[in-house]
Amino acid sequence: MEKTNRHNWKSKLHEIIYEADTPAGKLFDILLLIFILLSIVLVMLESVNNIDKKYHDILYFGEWFVTILFSIEYILRIISVKKPFKYIFSFFGIIDFLSTIPLYFTFLFGGTPALVTLRALRLLRVFRILKLARYLGASNQLKDSIIASRVKIFVFLFAVMVSSIIFGTIMYLVEGEENGFTNIPKSVYWCIVTLTTVGFGDIAPNTALGQFITTIIMILGYGIIAVPTGIVSAEYAKNANKDTEKKGDEELEDADLVEVHTNSQCCINCLAEKHQDGAEFCHKCGCKLHHD
Amino acid sequence: MEKTNRHNWKSKLHEIIYEADTPAGKLFDILLLIFILLSIVLVMLESVNNIDKKYHDILYFGEWFVTILFSIEYILRIISVKKPFKYIFSFFGIIDFLSTIPLYFTFLFGGTPALVTLRALRLLRVFRILKLARYLGASNQLKDSIIASRVKIFVFLFAVMVSSIIFGTIMYLVEGEENGFTNIPKSVYWCIVTLTTVGFGDIAPNTALGQFITTIIMILGYGIIAVPTGIVSAEYAKNANKDTEKKGDEELEDADLVEVHTNSQCCINCLAEKHQDGAEFCHKCGCKLHHD
Amino acid sequence: MEKTNRHNWKSKLHEIIYEADTPAGKLFDILLLIFILLSIVLVMLESVNNIDKKYHDILYFGEWFVTILFSIEYILRIISVKKPFKYIFSFFGIIDFLSTIPLYFTFLFGGTPALVTLRALRLLRVFRILKLARYLGASNQLKDSIIASRVKIFVFLFAVMVSSIIFGTIMYLVEGEENGFTNIPKSVYWCIVTLTTVGFGDIAPNTALGQFITTIIMILGYGIIAVPTGIVSAEYAKNANKDTEKKGDEELEDADLVEVHTNSQCCINCLAEKHQDGAEFCHKCGCKLHHD
Amino acid sequence: MEKTNRHNWKSKLHEIIYEADTPAGKLFDILLLIFILLSIVLVMLESVNNIDKKYHDILYFGEWFVTILFSIEYILRIISVKKPFKYIFSFFGIIDFLSTIPLYFTFLFGGTPALVTLRALRLLRVFRILKLARYLGASNQLKDSIIASRVKIFVFLFAVMVSSIIFGTIMYLVEGEENGFTNIPKSVYWCIVTLTTVGFGDIAPNTALGQFITTIIMILGYGIIAVPTGIVSAEYAKNANKDTEKKGDEELEDADLVEVHTNSQCCINCLAEKHQDGAEFCHKCGCKLHHD
Repeated sequence: MEKTNRHNWKSKLHEIIYEADTPAGKLFDILLLIFILLSIVLVMLESVNNIDKKYHDILYFGEWFVTILFSIEYILRIISVKKPFKYIFSFFGIIDFLSTIPLYFTFLFGGTPALVTLRALRLLRVFRILKLARYLGASNQLKDSIIASRVKIFVFLFAVMVSSIIFGTIMYLVEGEENGFTNIPKSVYWCIVTLTTVGFGDIAPNTALGQFITTIIMILGYGIIAVPTGIVSAEYAKNANKDTEKKGDEELEDADLVEVHTNSQCCINCLAEKHQDGAEFCHKCGCKLHHD
Repeated sequence: MEKTNRHNWKSKLHEIIYEADTPAGKLFDILLLIFILLSIVLVMLESVNNIDKKYHDILYFGEWFVTILFSIEYILRIISVKKPFKYIFSFFGIIDFLSTIPLYFTFLFGGTPALVTLRALRLLRVFRILKLARYLGASNQLKDSIIASRVKIFVFLFAVMVSSIIFGTIMYLVEGEENGFTNIPKSVYWCIVTLTTVGFGDIAPNTALGQFITTIIMILGYGIIAVPTGIVSAEYAKNANKDTEKKGDEELEDADLVEVHTNSQCCINCLAEKHQDGAEFCHKCGCKLHHD
Repeated sequence: MEKTNRHNWKSKLHEIIYEADTPAGKLFDILLLIFILLSIVLVMLESVNNIDKKYHDILYFGEWFVTILFSIEYILRIISVKKPFKYIFSFFGIIDFLSTIPLYFTFLFGGTPALVTLRALRLLRVFRILKLARYLGASNQLKDSIIASRVKIFVFLFAVMVSSIIFGTIMYLVEGEENGFTNIPKSVYWCIVTLTTVGFGDIAPNTALGQFITTIIMILGYGIIAVPTGIVSAEYAKNANKDTEKKGDEELEDADLVEVHTNSQCCINCLAEKHQDGAEFCHKCGCKLHHD
Repeated sequence: MEKTNRHNWKSKLHEIIYEADTPAGKLFDILLLIFILLSIVLVMLESVNNIDKKYHDILYFGEWFVTILFSIEYILRIISVKKPFKYIFSFFGIIDFLSTIPLYFTFLFGGTPALVTLRALRLLRVFRILKLARYLGASNQLKDSIIASRVKIFVFLFAVMVSSIIFGTIMYLVEGEENGFTNIPKSVYWCIVTLTTVGFGDIAPNTALGQFITTIIMILGYGIIAVPTGIVSAEYAKNANKDTEKKGDEELEDADLVEVHTNSQCCINCLAEKHQDGAEFCHKCGCKLHHD
């Protein structure tokens, strides 16, 4: 082997931090998920005035603890890839940086609400861990269903939009500003609230004609709700039939769990993902994937 | 060819404005869609008091810009058909006229709210562009599902109507005017709000008996919501099965996209639509469709 | 023929009023439906204060007109059956009487709100006309689906009830009277409002713990809503499959319309219904059905 | 037979109280269900101030009546098992004790609201009677559907949670404390209220940007509602297909009712359940199940 120990050490680190195929990689991802969730809980609790007053010191310590952990993780991520700038300027690289920096910035220059806002970006980091969901197979099926019916979903959303704008404008003209329909965008917002059967009630029709039109909108919404359900149900049923035909007597439930076509490997050089099972070289840059 | 150049020019214009089979025709439809959506945004923003005060001049200019464009389009539409009056007095001809005229009328005679109302009619023009949706195939399947289950949908709507009236009257008698159920139509409106699970909360039962009856209405609505979903799902599943049986191993998703039986051709003489693919003469008036 | 003309005349009348198989019978049912709906509109409009003040005379005249028509219909119904008391004390006989008498009673002895209430009973008469729905076939399929899944629906409703009571009690204890959860029945009512995703908002949780429990209830409700939909969808799909297997290449949509196993014949003697097609004698009392 | 009469008597009692296979056992379970429901009604009515004032004596007597009955049942339950402590410290044993004791405690030492709370625990006892539901078969199918799609349901719930937290934080930042979004947990709660289409309206967006984001959340929720429905529908359809294949021409509806694989036998020694049909000895402790 011509690789140095140092390289091997880097490669191991890369495997642990970026991938989730090894036990250590899985453990890292689970620990990261826990700390991200913990940091989310901290951000949430700090926003509650009573709790922040009582436990301000504990929350502040927790915040520093999580920030330092994330800083170490950020540095390790930079060290363990061959081209650090590729990571630093990637989507998750920027998220990682922005969600770690606010506390240091506040410590040095004093805090502003806008900085607190940045900390909420940590939530986006959860998506990185969602790679784990790939193992579940179920999300693949869900994605397939959505992709297969993308045209239907687009037509459906367009129909919802057009009917919301038309009914929203009509309601603005019928009800007018004195009944809360102060402008057309607000009226369209109300119309979507009604069509989706959410019905907050912050705005509600007061005139008899307005209530009659609302009745039509609601029954329309009642019918429209059937469309996405019908689409997804049909897709699920189709997939279920395909599975039954393919596998015959095999157990379906277990099949759902192992139906994984992509692994979590991630190139140490260019951070490319979605390598084939058993691939030895990156399909993007040709760099070796495993250095044993 | 005995046709004059002028006639050929008219025919090309007709093809661009009324049809969407050629690249130029598609481009025209997409541009028209953008300008209609832009004009809708203008109508919306003008209804917002704050924005209208600040950017009144820009909105006013944009309104004139869109109006002049629509005027040119209207004149070109009249020129490019053989029988202009057929277009002028068609549904979309009237919509086109009414949605263009308000600004000129306001400029000449001063504006009234009723005129602003007419501008909202532009929204109906979006449906003209919806011809594009035919290419998507998906809307055909949706239409087929609705047509196939029209009897079930009618019975369902009748059942909703009857139960709303009966429960609405009962609630009017039980709750009375002091609890917001001021008259039976309002009570029926509330009943539909509840049955469809919208639940604005502008009116809500206050008496114990009223709340008990509401519970029954809600659980009924919960069950009723299953009916349209069941109908549409079954139709979708049926269609999916038919497709699978017909096409066998072919790719289903692409099939959804090319499943188009009507093109966007529109007769230059009588504006009739839905010609067969490859048709050379109008099926209504016998006029030649393409003049190359 | 030994039957007298008078008898023949009675038999014809019976056919028109009670049955819907002949053109005259259908016309009678449709006219009756129109007048019932008209009388419902009158009851509704009278409950609206403004309209009642303005058009009181027209509404009063309309009410007398409809009442007299219904009185004639009631007398004809009594005349045309062999055993009038069987009709008078049948469910619809009592409804017909109670929904006709209030105006006479008010005229003679002065009106009370309770009498106005009786007029609302006319709504129940709509169900008599619903016999027409039998022709649609669709309602049969709906009924079959409901009957076939009655056990599942019962288990589902029991689960909804138990979870509503448990969560309702918990919310009563957590939120308490100061937040609108004044007693357990009201709290259970709120819980059903939430589970069915109606969400009026007349009562809403204020404490953090209450809002957390509400979150669980809502997600549970979100999952529960899938159950009746799934049941009905599966039943519809099952029926659709059965139809396809039976009929093969025949047109399905028309099949839905003719799938009628019961006619609207009604015995002149005992008012029994659901006779077989082509039956000559009543299956209950043996009386001849048609007297030509 | 070497068993004493006393033992036989105990065994009979055990069969009646703990099992539901014999007529006496079924009757006991049904009576217990009625008394539990009666006691729930009592707890409910006592919480209504007006009713408690008027009928306090009747409610108090009813409460004592039910409490004494439950005490007798509790003692009989202890007597009829071989290892009483196993029952006493089992989940239902503790529930039975805690839901019976409050009235005695109140009588002896004076009542506190916390004691009233304990009485609500009786509701949990209903689940014991739900063993009856096993006979219905339908709940088995429901359970199977849920178990078969547990992975999908977990992925779905995780997606709902993540999107609620992200959108909740965004809405907190956009709307702020002055519009009711006082802290992030409350904002997340509001987000789930909106996603599930409950829409209480106690909190509602006021800013234009907030209303725009709400529109996205609602349409997302509209799409998400399709997912659990699709999953359950597909599972039901799958089960329905399996049944049709297995049973062929047999009647499906009856099959749903008899599809019971577990009986309600319960070991007199260790209280283990889910014995095979026709089993003579407990599968856990080897104790004889029936002593005839």
